[in-house]
Amino acid sequence: MSSDLKSYLAEKRDLIDRHLDTHMPSEQELPGKIHEAMRYSVFAGGKRLRPILTLAAAEACGGDEQDALFPACATELLHTYSLVHDDLPAMDDDDLRRGRPTSHVVFGEAIAVLAGDALQAEAFRFLAETPANVTYSVADYLREFANCAGSKLLIGGQVLDLEGEGEEVNLSLEQLIAIHERKTAALLTSSIRLGAMSAGASAGQLEALTTFGYNLGLAFQVIDDILDVTADTATLGKTAGKDEASDKSTYPAILGLEKSREEAHRLTKLAMDALAVLGDDAAHLSAIAHYLLDREY
Amino acid sequence: MSSDLKSYLAEKRDLIDRHLDTHMPSEQELPGKIHEAMRYSVFAGGKRLRPILTLAAAEACGGDEQDALFPACATELLHTYSLVHDDLPAMDDDDLRRGRPTSHVVFGEAIAVLAGDALQAEAFRFLAETPANVTYSVADYLREFANCAGSKLLIGGQVLDLEGEGEEVNLSLEQLIAIHERKTAALLTSSIRLGAMSAGASAGQLEALTTFGYNLGLAFQVIDDILDVTADTATLGKTAGKDEASDKSTYPAILGLEKSREEAHRLTKLAMDALAVLGDDAAHLSAIAHYLLDREY
Repeated sequence: MSSDLKSYLAEKRDLIDRHLDTHMPSEQELPGKIHEAMRYSVFAGGKRLRPILTLAAAEACGGDEQDALFPACATELLHTYSLVHDDLPAMDDDDLRRGRPTSHVVFGEAIAVLAGDALQAEAFRFLAETPANVTYSVADYLREFANCAGSKLLIGGQVLDLEGEGEEVNLSLEQLIAIHERKTAALLTSSIRLGAMSAGASAGQLEALTTFGYNLGLAFQVIDDILDVTADTATLGKTAGKDEASDKSTYPAILGLEKSREEAHRLTKLAMDALAVLGDDAAHLSAIAHYLLDREY
Repeated sequence: MSSDLKSYLAEKRDLIDRHLDTHMPSEQELPGKIHEAMRYSVFAGGKRLRPILTLAAAEACGGDEQDALFPACATELLHTYSLVHDDLPAMDDDDLRRGRPTSHVVFGEAIAVLAGDALQAEAFRFLAETPANVTYSVADYLREFANCAGSKLLIGGQVLDLEGEGEEVNLSLEQLIAIHERKTAALLTSSIRLGAMSAGASAGQLEALTTFGYNLGLAFQVIDDILDVTADTATLGKTAGKDEASDKSTYPAILGLEKSREEAHRLTKLAMDALAVLGDDAAHLSAIAHYLLDREY
């Protein structure tokens, strides 16, 4: 990673963390337990990839960073809620996340369910503070975000994922893509689109960034699957080799490692090509995409 | 119940049901399982009290019913999600709801968690379609609704409720009210406020309806607690006597049955008094409040 990108990511991550900390309810507010649980999962050392993409997309469309901060944090809150619920015993039953015990291990299952529920509501509460502009209203932001969070995208992907587990199931590549289009790519795409919308993006800019987000999101998932096979638990900060142990369909399982790496490159190139129309303003988005691809080495 | 109120409730209930059916994803949409689970809980024979209050509040402020339909349905979707999650094994562990097996009994725990999650997102998706007016924007609706759904109100009430369970805990009346202000009264109040806002209510109208909603909501909960003691399972459509069996603090347990009935009357009177400024347009709201009080006999 270039030192320019490194300092950009560190600076934006701090900005996101401060904004979340300032605007989320404190642990002193009643009931303290739920705010403690919400903050435990939000401030767990995440990379803040989604909100940084929101900020970088706003920048790519010539927008004001301040206008993109609330929707950026909304995407991180939504992502965090989905992780808390995915980790539940009734779902993936994972005890470790980002190197720390998961919410239900620390707070019990009931509070983990409720913390996830509250984080989803909190995401929408943040979204309400996104300034409207000449092109986009809060109703537009809300439609975009609720659609992404709902039964056809995020939740739909998780349902297809659950249905695709177990040793008797062999997913086709098409079925695997149907899962990741909904689970990973949809939220990355919405994170990027919300940043663009907060900047009053033109129809052409929004279309280019949608293509970028979709392909980057799928590339990101391919690389996640590869790392689950090739990296160790300490590096990942979550249990490695879990996909294979749980008979989960993955890109390496269907395509093999080499073809999975090629697929990650192919998708990243499609993403980069889409960025071309945005010119130099998209330099940070472009650098982030390259960095995400480099994760596999 | 008067025949006028009976036909009003039946007509509005049909209207809400049709609107939900038209605008929720069908079971044919991918993934079918999640839409089946969402619809199973939404179309479970609920009274549609919250959305009918939204419509009646819009009417009380001289609004157009059509403008209140989406926020009305949003309150029902949010209510349904909270029931699905409350019934989970990790929460109240209830197998019966409205006379039918609960979501996790029918679909399994993972799908029940996800159906609840998707219903919350669906509630916000519906809310986005509420028309703005001169006084209120979609940002105003969103702030109202997200605040109600979040960690300080709905979820906060559920957390306080969980913390107040168990035979070693004796809640004070004040602590019990702190729970129900958040759990029951907050959503009834928001349902009413959203109807008023969709009608472009004046500040005075909104304030009167907020007082109405708060007191009606608490009265509703007192009566619910009374019915749990005095009614049988067949009449309730859910397990009767469950509060006492689970050592749950209730109004009858703290105040006794007679004083609880007096409290329900007192709260209902406060609610009715607040309605006075709205005049004849509030006739249906007033009739509904009287009807809810009559439930105890």
